[in-house]
Amino acid sequence: MENPTRFPDRPLLRIAVLGSTGSIGTQTLDVIAAHPDRFHLVALAAARNETLLREQARRFNVSLLCLGETDARGALTGTDGLCDLATHPDVDLVVVATTGAAGWEPTLAAIRAGKHVALANKEALVMAGSIIAVEARERGVVLRPVDSEHSAIWQCIQGEGVGDSHLTAPRGVRRLLLTASGGPFRNTPLAEMAAVTPRQALAHPTWTMGAKVTIDSATLMNKGLEVIEAHWLFEVPYEKLEVVVHPQSIVHSMVEFEDGSLKAQLGVPDMRVPIQYALGYPDHLPYGDLPRLDWERAQTLEFQPPDVDRFPCLRLAWEAGRLGGAYPAVLSAADEEAVCAFLAGTVGFTGIPRLVERALAAHQPISQPDFEAIRLVDAETRAHVREWARSPGPLPVG
Amino acid sequence: MENPTRFPDRPLLRIAVLGSTGSIGTQTLDVIAAHPDRFHLVALAAARNETLLREQARRFNVSLLCLGETDARGALTGTDGLCDLATHPDVDLVVVATTGAAGWEPTLAAIRAGKHVALANKEALVMAGSIIAVEARERGVVLRPVDSEHSAIWQCIQGEGVGDSHLTAPRGVRRLLLTASGGPFRNTPLAEMAAVTPRQALAHPTWTMGAKVTIDSATLMNKGLEVIEAHWLFEVPYEKLEVVVHPQSIVHSMVEFEDGSLKAQLGVPDMRVPIQYALGYPDHLPYGDLPRLDWERAQTLEFQPPDVDRFPCLRLAWEAGRLGGAYPAVLSAADEEAVCAFLAGTVGFTGIPRLVERALAAHQPISQPDFEAIRLVDAETRAHVREWARSPGPLPVG
Repeated sequence: MENPTRFPDRPLLRIAVLGSTGSIGTQTLDVIAAHPDRFHLVALAAARNETLLREQARRFNVSLLCLGETDARGALTGTDGLCDLATHPDVDLVVVATTGAAGWEPTLAAIRAGKHVALANKEALVMAGSIIAVEARERGVVLRPVDSEHSAIWQCIQGEGVGDSHLTAPRGVRRLLLTASGGPFRNTPLAEMAAVTPRQALAHPTWTMGAKVTIDSATLMNKGLEVIEAHWLFEVPYEKLEVVVHPQSIVHSMVEFEDGSLKAQLGVPDMRVPIQYALGYPDHLPYGDLPRLDWERAQTLEFQPPDVDRFPCLRLAWEAGRLGGAYPAVLSAADEEAVCAFLAGTVGFTGIPRLVERALAAHQPISQPDFEAIRLVDAETRAHVREWARSPGPLPVG
Repeated sequence: MENPTRFPDRPLLRIAVLGSTGSIGTQTLDVIAAHPDRFHLVALAAARNETLLREQARRFNVSLLCLGETDARGALTGTDGLCDLATHPDVDLVVVATTGAAGWEPTLAAIRAGKHVALANKEALVMAGSIIAVEARERGVVLRPVDSEHSAIWQCIQGEGVGDSHLTAPRGVRRLLLTASGGPFRNTPLAEMAAVTPRQALAHPTWTMGAKVTIDSATLMNKGLEVIEAHWLFEVPYEKLEVVVHPQSIVHSMVEFEDGSLKAQLGVPDMRVPIQYALGYPDHLPYGDLPRLDWERAQTLEFQPPDVDRFPCLRLAWEAGRLGGAYPAVLSAADEEAVCAFLAGTVGFTGIPRLVERALAAHQPISQPDFEAIRLVDAETRAHVREWARSPGPLPVG
């Protein structure tokens, strides 16, 4: 640190990183390495990349390790091992950086064990937000968002609340505006969308991320999942959530207050910024390598409303969120399978929203689902979507 | 209020408005009228518009009144009356909305009487920042900025501080970025600048303001004065202050943190927003009439570095700020007189910075000037500039 006296003394934070070999995981390790006076890595978990996991363990001298069992697609399923790490007495903060459905059980375990939780896994709150958010609030656990959008909102509402938790949207907030780059197909003619290849969809214009989240960014499902996540994180109703397309990805999200004043958080798109903020909260720690916006150069920031005809996933996520119950779990599970099928070449790009829409239509509503119900809905939805993706012929429009 | 339960109970704030018939003053009265449950107008002062002052007094049933003596140019000079209102036992908060040098003595009087102060007068901090800011800190008085730029910074640092006062720039701040519209002559060919008329200079592209501040916006002296004001308000060194030209005046200013993250405050340019925030702090009170940014429409926000060749006043202000002592008082007094001369048609537009530069060059440095010294420097500078403005022939280049 350039000048440690600017920050108050903070205890060393002992950190477990679940999903350490992925994009968020490796960047989290970079952040930890940059602040040895603040962060100490004590536990690592990964789904499959054993070589990298062992290399990370050696580099940081970590002995608490978990190599997950993997299912057919390589997703982490060894939830028992993850939960053990997430609740270990030597751990103060758990970074949940696993992709997909693997995150929600260790997230809940960490909350129940009274750990700080930095949440990079969207699906945890999407699938089980009603359970996780309530549990976190009741136990006074601060869910620290790692997503750049939620981190932006979190930063913008600092000092605005009156409650005892930042998770409750503060007084005077009119709405939260999540920005979306619009993905690589923002201007692609609608007729060409069906022919989009995985290679095209994996080329995100502004962010470097894992495959699942990159495809979700191209369909805008990612933004839809973030809307649901924001609903739970900040306890705001869906009518107070908006999406604004902002191709430059410089403004990471905004909060509008009742007086018409807005606060925005901005910066060069780099996940290390929100990761570091989640770990170092509430400090903005210096970090030499991080790129800065260059105000010596002319900058243009554009904003436009999203095109829901082009991106039906956004509409589907909104509908699932408003319907509540297990609908968001159906949305998330169906999307995960549909993206897999798209990456495997068995369905086209526009098949993703059609599979999700079909899964939502097929779901029998459950009010206030418990964990077992969500787990069941998740498994059923996945089985259906895999079957539909395998079936020949055009998909029915949901 | 749409939903009063969203805000905690606050005591009724009894307000004195100094400069009530000007642009900020009348808008302050609009804000007060919109929140009768929060604000109660108890005192009014104006320089010359007796008719409007009496009308305001009737409308708000105010009996504490002060009609200032006026000097040759109509500026408020009746500081004794202003100081009486600013320290009156029935007053909780003083809005200092007088223009020019008239603001600093009542500001200091209000601070010494332990009043809250909402400061719309730039010159107070520019001329006597070293005295006023220190006094405010020592007495624990929060100087609430009314300028949209300083209000933006104030809003952005909420929840970021560690000290007992928001006036101390918080930990982790790398710099404050003040935005400037660039005024009406941002793209005028340099050769045509000398021929700019008062009428052209009074047509500001984005903000509706009084004459002095509108001309200062056209020369960018306004931004220079704001840099000095920010230096004192937020206790940041000049190397942590930057100016960014932003023609749309939507982003009102920004704070950059050590981690590369920035916070910006934005909104439709309307002074009622920062006025209301200064009165209702820390609440963002709903206000039905206030315009909102329309995110359903495409928005483009542009930023570029300022052109100091085109706007020498910005450079002069920076130099005066860094030199310290009574230099900022010289800058402010010289500018006020130079703007008067320009409006009166006795000097051209480019004569304003030349008069200011000449005044700065003629000043004999004083370290740690007291009030008497500042008052003397102010009077001397004004006399010199008036004389130079009257003298025929081209002005010497400073």
